[in-house]
Amino acid sequence: MFCCVHRQDNKREGFAYQWILRKSGSLWVVFFCDGKFYRPAPYGCCHLINLSREAMAFTVKTIKSLGVLCSGGDSPGMNAAVRSVVRTAIGLGIDVFGIYKGYSGLLEGNIQKLGLSSVSNIIQRGGTILDTSRCLEFHTAEIRQEAAHILFRKHIDGLIVIGGNGSFAGAMELHREHAIPVVGIPGTIDNDISGTDYTIGFNTAVQTAVDAVDKIRDTASAHARTFLVEVMGHSSSCIALQVGVCTGAEHVVLSNQAVDYQKIANDIKKGAERGKTSSIIIVAEGEKAGLSYQIKEVLMNQYDISVHACVLGHIQRGGSPTALDRLIASKMGYAAVHALYEGQQAHVTAIIKGELEMVPLAECLEGKDEASEPELDLISALAI
Amino acid sequence: MFCCVHRQDNKREGFAYQWILRKSGSLWVVFFCDGKFYRPAPYGCCHLINLSREAMAFTVKTIKSLGVLCSGGDSPGMNAAVRSVVRTAIGLGIDVFGIYKGYSGLLEGNIQKLGLSSVSNIIQRGGTILDTSRCLEFHTAEIRQEAAHILFRKHIDGLIVIGGNGSFAGAMELHREHAIPVVGIPGTIDNDISGTDYTIGFNTAVQTAVDAVDKIRDTASAHARTFLVEVMGHSSSCIALQVGVCTGAEHVVLSNQAVDYQKIANDIKKGAERGKTSSIIIVAEGEKAGLSYQIKEVLMNQYDISVHACVLGHIQRGGSPTALDRLIASKMGYAAVHALYEGQQAHVTAIIKGELEMVPLAECLEGKDEASEPELDLISALAI
Amino acid sequence: MFCCVHRQDNKREGFAYQWILRKSGSLWVVFFCDGKFYRPAPYGCCHLINLSREAMAFTVKTIKSLGVLCSGGDSPGMNAAVRSVVRTAIGLGIDVFGIYKGYSGLLEGNIQKLGLSSVSNIIQRGGTILDTSRCLEFHTAEIRQEAAHILFRKHIDGLIVIGGNGSFAGAMELHREHAIPVVGIPGTIDNDISGTDYTIGFNTAVQTAVDAVDKIRDTASAHARTFLVEVMGHSSSCIALQVGVCTGAEHVVLSNQAVDYQKIANDIKKGAERGKTSSIIIVAEGEKAGLSYQIKEVLMNQYDISVHACVLGHIQRGGSPTALDRLIASKMGYAAVHALYEGQQAHVTAIIKGELEMVPLAECLEGKDEASEPELDLISALAI
Amino acid sequence: MFCCVHRQDNKREGFAYQWILRKSGSLWVVFFCDGKFYRPAPYGCCHLINLSREAMAFTVKTIKSLGVLCSGGDSPGMNAAVRSVVRTAIGLGIDVFGIYKGYSGLLEGNIQKLGLSSVSNIIQRGGTILDTSRCLEFHTAEIRQEAAHILFRKHIDGLIVIGGNGSFAGAMELHREHAIPVVGIPGTIDNDISGTDYTIGFNTAVQTAVDAVDKIRDTASAHARTFLVEVMGHSSSCIALQVGVCTGAEHVVLSNQAVDYQKIANDIKKGAERGKTSSIIIVAEGEKAGLSYQIKEVLMNQYDISVHACVLGHIQRGGSPTALDRLIASKMGYAAVHALYEGQQAHVTAIIKGELEMVPLAECLEGKDEASEPELDLISALAI
Repeated sequence: MFCCVHRQDNKREGFAYQWILRKSGSLWVVFFCDGKFYRPAPYGCCHLINLSREAMAFTVKTIKSLGVLCSGGDSPGMNAAVRSVVRTAIGLGIDVFGIYKGYSGLLEGNIQKLGLSSVSNIIQRGGTILDTSRCLEFHTAEIRQEAAHILFRKHIDGLIVIGGNGSFAGAMELHREHAIPVVGIPGTIDNDISGTDYTIGFNTAVQTAVDAVDKIRDTASAHARTFLVEVMGHSSSCIALQVGVCTGAEHVVLSNQAVDYQKIANDIKKGAERGKTSSIIIVAEGEKAGLSYQIKEVLMNQYDISVHACVLGHIQRGGSPTALDRLIASKMGYAAVHALYEGQQAHVTAIIKGELEMVPLAECLEGKDEASEPELDLISALAI
Repeated sequence: MFCCVHRQDNKREGFAYQWILRKSGSLWVVFFCDGKFYRPAPYGCCHLINLSREAMAFTVKTIKSLGVLCSGGDSPGMNAAVRSVVRTAIGLGIDVFGIYKGYSGLLEGNIQKLGLSSVSNIIQRGGTILDTSRCLEFHTAEIRQEAAHILFRKHIDGLIVIGGNGSFAGAMELHREHAIPVVGIPGTIDNDISGTDYTIGFNTAVQTAVDAVDKIRDTASAHARTFLVEVMGHSSSCIALQVGVCTGAEHVVLSNQAVDYQKIANDIKKGAERGKTSSIIIVAEGEKAGLSYQIKEVLMNQYDISVHACVLGHIQRGGSPTALDRLIASKMGYAAVHALYEGQQAHVTAIIKGELEMVPLAECLEGKDEASEPELDLISALAI
Repeated sequence: MFCCVHRQDNKREGFAYQWILRKSGSLWVVFFCDGKFYRPAPYGCCHLINLSREAMAFTVKTIKSLGVLCSGGDSPGMNAAVRSVVRTAIGLGIDVFGIYKGYSGLLEGNIQKLGLSSVSNIIQRGGTILDTSRCLEFHTAEIRQEAAHILFRKHIDGLIVIGGNGSFAGAMELHREHAIPVVGIPGTIDNDISGTDYTIGFNTAVQTAVDAVDKIRDTASAHARTFLVEVMGHSSSCIALQVGVCTGAEHVVLSNQAVDYQKIANDIKKGAERGKTSSIIIVAEGEKAGLSYQIKEVLMNQYDISVHACVLGHIQRGGSPTALDRLIASKMGYAAVHALYEGQQAHVTAIIKGELEMVPLAECLEGKDEASEPELDLISALAI
Repeated sequence: MFCCVHRQDNKREGFAYQWILRKSGSLWVVFFCDGKFYRPAPYGCCHLINLSREAMAFTVKTIKSLGVLCSGGDSPGMNAAVRSVVRTAIGLGIDVFGIYKGYSGLLEGNIQKLGLSSVSNIIQRGGTILDTSRCLEFHTAEIRQEAAHILFRKHIDGLIVIGGNGSFAGAMELHREHAIPVVGIPGTIDNDISGTDYTIGFNTAVQTAVDAVDKIRDTASAHARTFLVEVMGHSSSCIALQVGVCTGAEHVVLSNQAVDYQKIANDIKKGAERGKTSSIIIVAEGEKAGLSYQIKEVLMNQYDISVHACVLGHIQRGGSPTALDRLIASKMGYAAVHALYEGQQAHVTAIIKGELEMVPLAECLEGKDEASEPELDLISALAI
């Protein structure tokens, strides 16, 4: 096993960084560029060497400091994760740097060392004390090169990224190109990241939407009306399906299917024939909010059915995280730091079948939409 | 003082009802039509007599039963009021009839006697167990005549109407035309009824909106964004103003004024210059929901300011009533029954300067919008 | 495979029930007593026959009606489970009978047929519309015999019991002695039933306690005080541990360990030295509420540390169920009915590693306390 | 009218402070000691002069800075008041100093200048960012002298005290002895300050207790039990009475009356006879928490009635303030600063009949308990 003695910035043109490693007593100098390792050779040449990903574990135990950032849409529980990262790291003797406003803030050097008290009393807060942003320019390699330099200059040895699969893609590149150890913590209300069954914020978003629909049902019942309630989730129907089950909705319009107006109209009419006076239909927003307004128009114009439409909107992104989100966020933050500490390089703190597992980052770069048949069956069985 | 001995349906063509009254030992027969009283005269004639409103107190102490209905939009606390009406009446020995679905239900005879347990465990529920509706046809006198007949046939001596000023107008006519004792309980989230400082449901609607804006502010802060949040209230800005103060909003767009885009744009820009990274602007919906989408477009197209718009919608109409709404609803229900019991004929249980007072129904038939300067001053003073 | 043609009460002395079964065209008559099957033999004798549990699947498809009851302490989500049972059963053409007040109600014949609308609008309600009770007398076989007779006389073919492991024990006996198909749905806030990772109500209880501690922390911070907050869970520390993680508690006192006063005192003092001005210590109530008062006394008298004690009490048992409890309750109710419908005889709708599985009832009769080391480590790591 | 030109510390033995005033062009030097004014006279003497309280308005318009502190028990809405004080003051060009931990912090010089952003995003938070404490030593004049010196040395011209009547007493003395302009903002959940109908935090405490009782009623109903629920309020029954009305409680035990066990027992028994299966009895804690445990014992031992007791405790003191508390706190903070700015010297921002009024501090130094008959009548009328 290699052990890192020293790491420094690019000493040789064309290479990003240079390490001095020790293995069995002898010292090695290696260069790193674009995912590959080289050894200096006579006459200024470099030989590609076969230092596999596993060997990259030479950074093991050398993590003395780490940075943590939130990226993409905020989600409730991000603060609980940040708190857990900070406290766990300090407990292990690792310095922690908060990087503000996501990758944009990293590029601007908007970075501060965080102490224990900086995360006091935030476990229950929505949003994120680190702020967040979407950073499109991070898609270019030059920009990421800059980011890597900033991390090195600040002596930040590893990076924890809390966000969605887009944010993970940036982290993956940063790791591949610059050998920076990264760990992703899945944080988005949409629960749409491949490789993990759960993302921080999902439960809170569902709960907020359920509470909202409970209120709307009061009016629906009192007035014998049908309401379309549009929930968030982007291209995923996860929120819509759980909200559908939890509110006793009569129907759920999924995001990945064409709207079946005829079926919706039939369901409403059949319900009315069976004596139902009010109905709730949950609509997954899909790529762009406002679908429920369109459905309302069609139902009115083509089927002569009068419905009300509510777009719940951004209330689903905020608010104090539920117990479940705090719990999972706390566990993930703790696991993320330990993973870096133990030399894992590019992993995600995933929930698989109820257990926290470290999953390779490469498996978590896709979106997903697990609109499962069982939940639809359940909803229609219980909506009779 | 007259004392009512007997009341019956129209015995004589052209007159609605006939009472046999006793005064100082002798019996009188009087007819009532369109707000006036007549005595039978020889040859089938009738003489108009001068029985003033006060003399109409002959029905005092004769209330043996009353009906209660909810009309117009539902509001949280209506159930608490219904419970209070039912329990107070039964405690006084008065039969109570629940009239379902407002005036429409009255016309359809959708009426059931209510016992003590019918209102168990409802004080904390949103909506209304009596259901509600808007009944446009109640604007015609013939329809109201029918309604009066139904009440008489069911031996319902007085009516308690929980609703807004439109619903009160129907009650006023019913009283004027058919001498039916009515009491209005102001119930609408909009707090827009003349003659009372408060209407049941307002506090809950404000609280729900405040809770929603608290959540939205999490995202606004985390992303450094400006949000337009549209709240209910129809033509009244009451909800918008209180929500503005309670959420520390930077600006409130009132319902009764043209939108001053230039000022909004300036406020946002000035705030940004002072270092504010996020803003909340509360928009009173006015007559028709959706104003915030329009403002968003204008700010984007004419001022190049990017904002997000959220229409809170019907979540503000439902939910468990706040303590304040339960308290006031309980007091109003209690006072309404006692008012009928003590012979008041056409009053409203109003809140004036923090105290419950009985106010003539005629003073409570208008809408109102008390967008007061002080609250606007307060909002702008605290938004610096 | 056998198929049940007819079932009737005890025709022959000493045997509880008699079935007429059909197998491959021929009819069989079998008796059942104390978990074993017999065939009539000449001269009034009976031969024990080898009809295994699997063969008992002769009742498959013959379930025409089922009863559902709640037993033991109520928990949020029981109503969601009842709704799911009722709707699923009716959808499958099975009659459903609500048995009120648990086993006591069963013995009193407090049983009503439930229609679709009987479970309208209850998914969001705490408590249980079926009421519940603890029934000690159900521990005697004679009483259970009575219960079985009542079920047969009412033509109730199967029973769904929502409750804890004590309630399951009664169901197990009922099944063993009288061959009544039973399915248990784990419902208790304590999450202390062997054989399942989750019980309905646990998440809501944790959430309620977390919300309460959030409020208490406001005062703890403002006054620089230490609070002991005692949470429910009987002999299980599950609630205490999750609440500890989710509120950032400094310490958790488990129910199954002697209180280590010295450690608590040290933790408080060390925290104070590091600059912590306030602390929250979560106390699992154990067998009997009030432990926190005792700890407060000892800390005061022996360690001169002043703390406040709060016993959260029954607020943890009520309230609208969280989304998670509604979801799991809905799934469990659905699965319970399908299990009976498909001929399962004595199972529990369990959650194992995040998935719903049918587990033999016999595995779910014990209490458990999974106070796991990992969570304690997490709490102390994050409390620095 | 006098106008203050200069103020400085004690130049002459025995006097606390010295002002140089201007009146109609000529300058005056005055000393102040123990509520009286003196002019220097030849030979080191001083003549008492008749500078009335009104004349003390010489400090009018000279307020250049003010301090704000919270004292006594924290209450939800204190942060909203602090925010309002800070923003209003800065808007008027007045420097604001936060004094941490109440009068104790003042004595320790725990004082920091507050900027606009120091109060960002706190309107919705429970507790108080300024922390609070009870400071018994402030009852001695020497200690208050010290406090006055600290204020003068820090150039703090006026003081806003957010707290209860005990805290106001300290402020009153400080004003009387040292001519420091003070304004009190009533902040306590108990609503027990003479001179004002409302104190910040009361509505939130009632709401929290009502939410808790709603949850407890779920279990009470499901199990057919009677619960005693003890609420806060010290010697005031205000919280208990409102909670009683708002939860449909069957009985309220007031804090200022001997417990009438016979009546409670009768009420429970009568209720049971009328078919009530569950009851809620609200208990005002009185001077010392735990009364409900005592009542439980007596009911059990002397009347053989089994009840459960819940002490809600400190959850009532924390949590996000309700809309009403935020609104009133915002108005009071604004009014308090304007009062100082306009030269008021010793007033309280009171709510009288729904309106904010400035009331002399001297009228607000007593506790009060307005356990009014009407509310008790209402509770018993609705509990039938």
